[in-house]
Amino acid sequence: MRIQEFQKRIEEIYFERDSARGLAGTHMWFCEEVGELTRALRRGQRDELEGEFADVLAWLSTLASIAGVDLQAAATGKYAAGCPRCRETPCNCG
Amino acid sequence: MRIQEFQKRIEEIYFERDSARGLAGTHMWFCEEVGELTRALRRGQRDELEGEFADVLAWLSTLASIAGVDLQAAATGKYAAGCPRCRETPCNCG
Repeated sequence: MRIQEFQKRIEEIYFERDSARGLAGTHMWFCEEVGELTRALRRGQRDELEGEFADVLAWLSTLASIAGVDLQAAATGKYAAGCPRCRETPCNCG
Repeated sequence: MRIQEFQKRIEEIYFERDSARGLAGTHMWFCEEVGELTRALRRGQRDELEGEFADVLAWLSTLASIAGVDLQAAATGKYAAGCPRCRETPCNCG
């Protein structure tokens, strides 16, 4: 699934509610999910990791939608050509 | 670009260094990027938003790689069919 399709899918499921909640409130949810991912990583809870990564990506996507950012365009624009600092692959920033 | 391709691209650029740094150190970088995104959102810095969203996605991807998680499989597995709680689109969890 393309990044853009995933962001669109999350919009279909959650945009109305998330945009009504607003940027700051939705950012709190996003940070809560980052915390849950952190806990799963710290504890080495492999059975929960996939779901927690999915949740952080979903909340990042909805934040981008509220902010009017196309996540795929942003991601490929910055990283498709290699490290954005040194322009090399692998990164050679040292 | 597919989520899987982006994760692979980030691996090509950064995996050797990030995996050598390890999970905890890479998680610190990830959180630093979340902080930079937060600042750009709070300040309404539209010219920086795209880059900050890209950075958080890149660091989330590299964390997933270190943890052995396929971000696309995780994301689509949880969200492709609608809200994972109520199974509806849009979400009707109330």
